Amino acid sequence: MLTATNEITVPTDLDRFFTDNEARIRDELFELLRIPSVSARSEHNADTTRAAEWVAASMRAAGLQATVHRTPGHPVVVGEWRGAGANAPTVLAYGHYDVQPAEPLDLWTSPPFEPTVRSGKIFARGSVDDKGQLFLHVKAVEALLRTRGTLPVNLVLLVEGEEEVGSEHLSDFVESNAKLLRADAVVISDSAMFAPGLPSLLSSLRGLAYFQIDVQGPTTDLHSGSYGGAVINPAMALARILATMHDGSGRIAIDGFYDRVLDWGEKAREEIRDLPFDEERFREETGTPALGGEAGFSTLERLWMRPTCEINGLLSGYTGEGAKTVLPSKAMAKVSCRLVPDQDPQQIEQLMRAHVERFAPKGITVTVTHLHGGRPWRANLDGPLFDAARRALTAAFGREPVITGEGGSIPVVGDFQRILGAPVLLMGFGLPGENAHAPNEWMSEESFTRGLRAVAMLYQELGAKS
Amino acid sequence: MLTATNEITVPTDLDRFFTDNEARIRDELFELLRIPSVSARSEHNADTTRAAEWVAASMRAAGLQATVHRTPGHPVVVGEWRGAGANAPTVLAYGHYDVQPAEPLDLWTSPPFEPTVRSGKIFARGSVDDKGQLFLHVKAVEALLRTRGTLPVNLVLLVEGEEEVGSEHLSDFVESNAKLLRADAVVISDSAMFAPGLPSLLSSLRGLAYFQIDVQGPTTDLHSGSYGGAVINPAMALARILATMHDGSGRIAIDGFYDRVLDWGEKAREEIRDLPFDEERFREETGTPALGGEAGFSTLERLWMRPTCEINGLLSGYTGEGAKTVLPSKAMAKVSCRLVPDQDPQQIEQLMRAHVERFAPKGITVTVTHLHGGRPWRANLDGPLFDAARRALTAAFGREPVITGEGGSIPVVGDFQRILGAPVLLMGFGLPGENAHAPNEWMSEESFTRGLRAVAMLYQELGAKS
Repeated sequence: MLTATNEITVPTDLDRFFTDNEARIRDELFELLRIPSVSARSEHNADTTRAAEWVAASMRAAGLQATVHRTPGHPVVVGEWRGAGANAPTVLAYGHYDVQPAEPLDLWTSPPFEPTVRSGKIFARGSVDDKGQLFLHVKAVEALLRTRGTLPVNLVLLVEGEEEVGSEHLSDFVESNAKLLRADAVVISDSAMFAPGLPSLLSSLRGLAYFQIDVQGPTTDLHSGSYGGAVINPAMALARILATMHDGSGRIAIDGFYDRVLDWGEKAREEIRDLPFDEERFREETGTPALGGEAGFSTLERLWMRPTCEINGLLSGYTGEGAKTVLPSKAMAKVSCRLVPDQDPQQIEQLMRAHVERFAPKGITVTVTHLHGGRPWRANLDGPLFDAARRALTAAFGREPVITGEGGSIPVVGDFQRILGAPVLLMGFGLPGENAHAPNEWMSEESFTRGLRAVAMLYQELGAKS
Repeated sequence: MLTATNEITVPTDLDRFFTDNEARIRDELFELLRIPSVSARSEHNADTTRAAEWVAASMRAAGLQATVHRTPGHPVVVGEWRGAGANAPTVLAYGHYDVQPAEPLDLWTSPPFEPTVRSGKIFARGSVDDKGQLFLHVKAVEALLRTRGTLPVNLVLLVEGEEEVGSEHLSDFVESNAKLLRADAVVISDSAMFAPGLPSLLSSLRGLAYFQIDVQGPTTDLHSGSYGGAVINPAMALARILATMHDGSGRIAIDGFYDRVLDWGEKAREEIRDLPFDEERFREETGTPALGGEAGFSTLERLWMRPTCEINGLLSGYTGEGAKTVLPSKAMAKVSCRLVPDQDPQQIEQLMRAHVERFAPKGITVTVTHLHGGRPWRANLDGPLFDAARRALTAAFGREPVITGEGGSIPVVGDFQRILGAPVLLMGFGLPGENAHAPNEWMSEESFTRGLRAVAMLYQELGAKS
């Protein structure tokens, strides 16, 4: 049965360009993959610089103006094409040329910086994270300019070299160059599809409010015999405070915690239920005897649309081998909450402080320190940006994309939205099991081929809407 | 007002002996205190041997037969006098010649191994713990033998050199030499009086059941964003288990935990209430903002007659500086219970296992390991041993002793009772603030002088009962 969306196809000129140039495009990608641009290791500083310059040269060959910008860390590359006119939208595409360290090397089947194709997969460090994906944008631009002599949108390609080490200098760079980078939409291809052949649009990210809770009891560690029973044990006090944070159904029991949690609605939940998710396989992957969490929600719902309150670390007293009868002087917990729209890290901080204070017994002093926070994000699924992406992916993959969520955070998304005021689209072409930060990282050849077409189509569709 | 007990006095012959020989006895004690017999440091092995031989020589000078026994560790000294006849009771007195390390040396006002008297206190490492106290027994024997030519009891003096490092070889030595050490009563002078001038008999020790609780969640640490909310957090599971161990009133909520706890009775509680205990000073000493514990009991009752359940250590996930968003693979707690008569460590182990199992959620695996256990002890306050001690202390100090408890454990007490089958008397002459394991250790000159008389009187009174 043909549906309306199935009628969208990749235009013949673009499709032919990609077919005719397939071998050359792949050879060029392999050149980039051979540069060991490991941002975490200073001995690779010459390689990150070389990768930045290679990307800039590749942008120029595609028809963009390109500049390599020095930063206090690794360089940022900006490619531009401003020929679509003042009435056409400006799109900013973001990617990164730096890669994770390749160690442990002995676990790689083929060398990490010698790209090798096996069973339809391109194996190399950076193949999918993110060199392969950023290259889709460079080659999509080339295809459009070579076949049509013009782009339907004004384009800025922003490629950084510090994503794998926390994008330390990126938000400063974006702030300082806000005028250069001004855009109507931001596109990021640095995520994965839900399953092979299933194009995906990432619609949400969780935010974070990360705390350290310190409980101080006696001035020094005491003998648990001489003092135990008459002095409040700070570790026990901490355990009792932590145990109040959930009720018996796995729901967070901090007063007001859910006040700003959006209901995604039955349709979104239905779409999540329809995803081909293998819960048993997910459980096996974690190695736990059983999955668990907030009652009334499925695993994917718990990961994507529900907030959490987790212990990330615990430390108190004696932790070595054997028995030491110490009544600890202090106890510490790292506790973090993953947040969902429209929760606000600052409000959660207030609620957490009030909760801890309420449940702290006499006889100890408790301190809550807010270490780190980030806002949750949810895409506007009804806007023209998502519409264009839906059509582009449908054309390239022959089926409508699914809408997925992500339990973690991608800080640059918040930065772009905050500094540039533009909506963000997360359209990635990785796949589950791609080993992005592990040995034997790979990108699917088919995803790469279809990704080229999808990105070119996205630019076309974004231009068509103007 | 003279009461019956106040009529007991130290016999003139003994009192005169101690007065006439005061300077010599002190000079001899100082000789022993000058030997740095630190059992924890192998560079002092020659010193521990020298101290053992010094003690043996001192016993011989007092009129005992003395042997230095080799052990796999430091030597044990046994002194004997068997002249009281088969119908007289045999008393075993225990002490130790080894001392704690003296560091940090710069905090000592006078050198640790150069005994110095200031304000009626003998300052030296080992002065009160336990050289000064074991010497009381040697000199009491000497006084009795010199003044009367005989002892009213058969006597065995057992002096070890590994008390400060856990008495590792003592129970083996006692087992192997049970016949040599066979006794009708055991006397230990290695504890403190409740307050200056207030002779004290220690009537109880708490036992111990020490556990490690290990919670295993996922096989490896997971990303708290990608997995948080759908995988049970082992640290949170542990905190929730630990929080079930007490109810809101500080009472231990483990089923059956109090089944074997003896009620000490109103008289014993009244005696505890009558002790000159400064609760605010105790609180200041701990540095906590407020004391706390099981509702319905005073601080001393909580320490002496009530059991505890304490966390001694906690470890899970990330414990370094800053924020790391890890969902830990495992979490560990060291948990120990101080036990009171007639609680049994093995039964408590069963109850602890059942409790943890009951409150462990699905999705994790929990293991309880019993690391260490010891029985609680309570003296028979009505027997002839305590009666003799009461009279001896009353005579020496001019007032009736108080009955005190101890929240910690003294393992040798259980060993003596178990192996020798004899009741144990804990009659110590230390004082609060004596710095037993700290710089500037001291023993009160007055306690030493009165202690000599008390110990001689104890032997006399034990003989009188036979």
